[in-house]
Amino acid sequence: MTLNEEALQLHEEWNGKLETVAKCHVKSREDLALAYTPGVAEPCKVIAKDPDAAYRYTIKSNTVAVISDGSAVLGLGNIGAKAAMPVMEGKCVLFKEFGNVNAFPICLDTQDTEEIIKTIVNIAPAFGGINLEDISAPRCFEIESRLKELLDIPVFHDDQHGTAIVVLAGIINALKVTGKKKEECKVVVNGAGSAGIAISKLLLNYGFKHLTLCDRSGILSKETPDLNWMQKQMMDITNLEGATGSLADALKGADIFVGVSAPNIVTKEMVASMNKDSILFAMANPVPEIMPDLAKEAGAKVVGTGRSDFPNQVNNVVAFPGIFKGALEGRATQITEDMKLAAAKAIAALVSDEELNENFIMPEAFDPRVCEVVSNAVKELI
Amino acid sequence: MTLNEEALQLHEEWNGKLETVAKCHVKSREDLALAYTPGVAEPCKVIAKDPDAAYRYTIKSNTVAVISDGSAVLGLGNIGAKAAMPVMEGKCVLFKEFGNVNAFPICLDTQDTEEIIKTIVNIAPAFGGINLEDISAPRCFEIESRLKELLDIPVFHDDQHGTAIVVLAGIINALKVTGKKKEECKVVVNGAGSAGIAISKLLLNYGFKHLTLCDRSGILSKETPDLNWMQKQMMDITNLEGATGSLADALKGADIFVGVSAPNIVTKEMVASMNKDSILFAMANPVPEIMPDLAKEAGAKVVGTGRSDFPNQVNNVVAFPGIFKGALEGRATQITEDMKLAAAKAIAALVSDEELNENFIMPEAFDPRVCEVVSNAVKELI
Repeated sequence: MTLNEEALQLHEEWNGKLETVAKCHVKSREDLALAYTPGVAEPCKVIAKDPDAAYRYTIKSNTVAVISDGSAVLGLGNIGAKAAMPVMEGKCVLFKEFGNVNAFPICLDTQDTEEIIKTIVNIAPAFGGINLEDISAPRCFEIESRLKELLDIPVFHDDQHGTAIVVLAGIINALKVTGKKKEECKVVVNGAGSAGIAISKLLLNYGFKHLTLCDRSGILSKETPDLNWMQKQMMDITNLEGATGSLADALKGADIFVGVSAPNIVTKEMVASMNKDSILFAMANPVPEIMPDLAKEAGAKVVGTGRSDFPNQVNNVVAFPGIFKGALEGRATQITEDMKLAAAKAIAALVSDEELNENFIMPEAFDPRVCEVVSNAVKELI
Repeated sequence: MTLNEEALQLHEEWNGKLETVAKCHVKSREDLALAYTPGVAEPCKVIAKDPDAAYRYTIKSNTVAVISDGSAVLGLGNIGAKAAMPVMEGKCVLFKEFGNVNAFPICLDTQDTEEIIKTIVNIAPAFGGINLEDISAPRCFEIESRLKELLDIPVFHDDQHGTAIVVLAGIINALKVTGKKKEECKVVVNGAGSAGIAISKLLLNYGFKHLTLCDRSGILSKETPDLNWMQKQMMDITNLEGATGSLADALKGADIFVGVSAPNIVTKEMVASMNKDSILFAMANPVPEIMPDLAKEAGAKVVGTGRSDFPNQVNNVVAFPGIFKGALEGRATQITEDMKLAAAKAIAALVSDEELNENFIMPEAFDPRVCEVVSNAVKELI
């Protein structure tokens, strides 16, 4: 049986990967009177007077909504709400297993930006945080930023920020391995969707100075036709020299390549044209932009992918459970840029100087310290 | 410590009465590959081709949303979304503990009918059923009926139908105890909100012929000013003789009183004016329309209340868990009128002829047979 066949069979056995379980059992009339009527009226009254008390008496204190409209599901594209459910349930499982955060999947039967925003605002009272997932760009940018204004709980689009945090963590350690300085590195990010744009922003915030965004059409510049509003904004902070050309052109003399794009689009020749000791994060999944062995043969020093069967896996699971755990425990109202930087540094710092080498720049996803250090990094900034 | 104090303290200890728990554990890279990426893509693809497969691979098969806008919370009124959460969480706990149905609370930060409808339609993909709760009349009627048209999963407003089913179950047995015939009984329902109207409809569907609805202003008739649209509709099937007057007038010569109204509004004199061996369901909570001992002194034969410290408790918990369990297991798209009648009969039938007496017309809420017979009654009609 292949992995895919086994996965399908297991999903049928599980028949839903989550269940809701009572923390208070109701085995007698007395239990019923305490957990439900008439006793339940007491916390209701307190919350009616002081809405903040919801954090004391309800699941809001430790529950996240994992919300998608199914418009950009990993590797599958726009498959809609129902078909996105297994992914969102899986994400909820990871929240619980890695972060002990309760999470519930909400798949939206609309892809209209305004309706999505309104729906999420309407259902927010039960939740302490909103994890947006697999929503296509550029809608995801507007949905997230509008929700941040409208809600007083953290809103976090994991495809953007989770990915960006983990990539930055890897790059921090890759810089150590290669001895490169962030101020001097030329960075190329290929893929100008949600992940690529968030990665670019976070790298710039971390202190990189030279960053070029590319997509299918090559280098993005102010002259590129049909940029969406977010890509246009990005032209104010990337490609400041106004370069044009192909991805191959962009990579000449570059130090770092970050791919969130398509399989096999980076050739050995392109890698060979990069600076010495180049760093590649080829995260197209399951087939990366270039296979690690080819990249190494062409001169790359550090190669990361999205896959668990190569070294240096870039896996969001080291970020989002701890991010929300910290935000919920500290009652953060936002996940700030500073928190993301702190989370990336905390993840990177888990790899000790003795352990650090070109094939070990990331802590293990199952390292129990990961969630703890990320959550503490976030909490310290609340 | 009073019960209320204990309830408040426990709610703080629980800090949310529900948690989401993974049915698939993720302890290794292999687990991760099966429950999440890349394996998760398989069920997604199957559902994208055949949306019905969501019942095979996702929580939709056994998960209900408990949804309220907090506009009419039991005994507390319009306390809003956040303050309603402890009640909705409690309801979810009962779904799981009594029916092994997973349930998640959704409290809506809007009380606009159109927005509520749109929001619920938008979040429906994750759920196999929608349990509406504590939404004020007459908005609840429109919200429920519109959702029934728009969704292909059961939508059930428990304040209406759960209550109606349990009252009918009690009345079926009270008729046996008193030897009264439904066709000949005069029924008075006091309280013309969601519960009172649903009870009236179900009793008429069961075969009662003479039913009068009352509210604060007394007997409702076609001449009563300011009836809402649903109350107007009810005038075509109730009070066919066009009576007017007070609740006291309505009760003269009546056989059955059903109160979903206010404490202590029925006097001994009113009960004494009813027919011999009268049946009273005085369900105002926590203080009933008349205390059972007073009603008995005035000649009532069977008295039920909403309270667990008197005989004949009318408790929705004997209905809704089994209703949804049956509907989910049988993949019902609606909870029909026939299913409600069948559920009421099944609940009533659990009290054997030997057990049946004026102080024992209802099965115990904790009787494990209850959920099973109700769910089977529903399933047989799918």
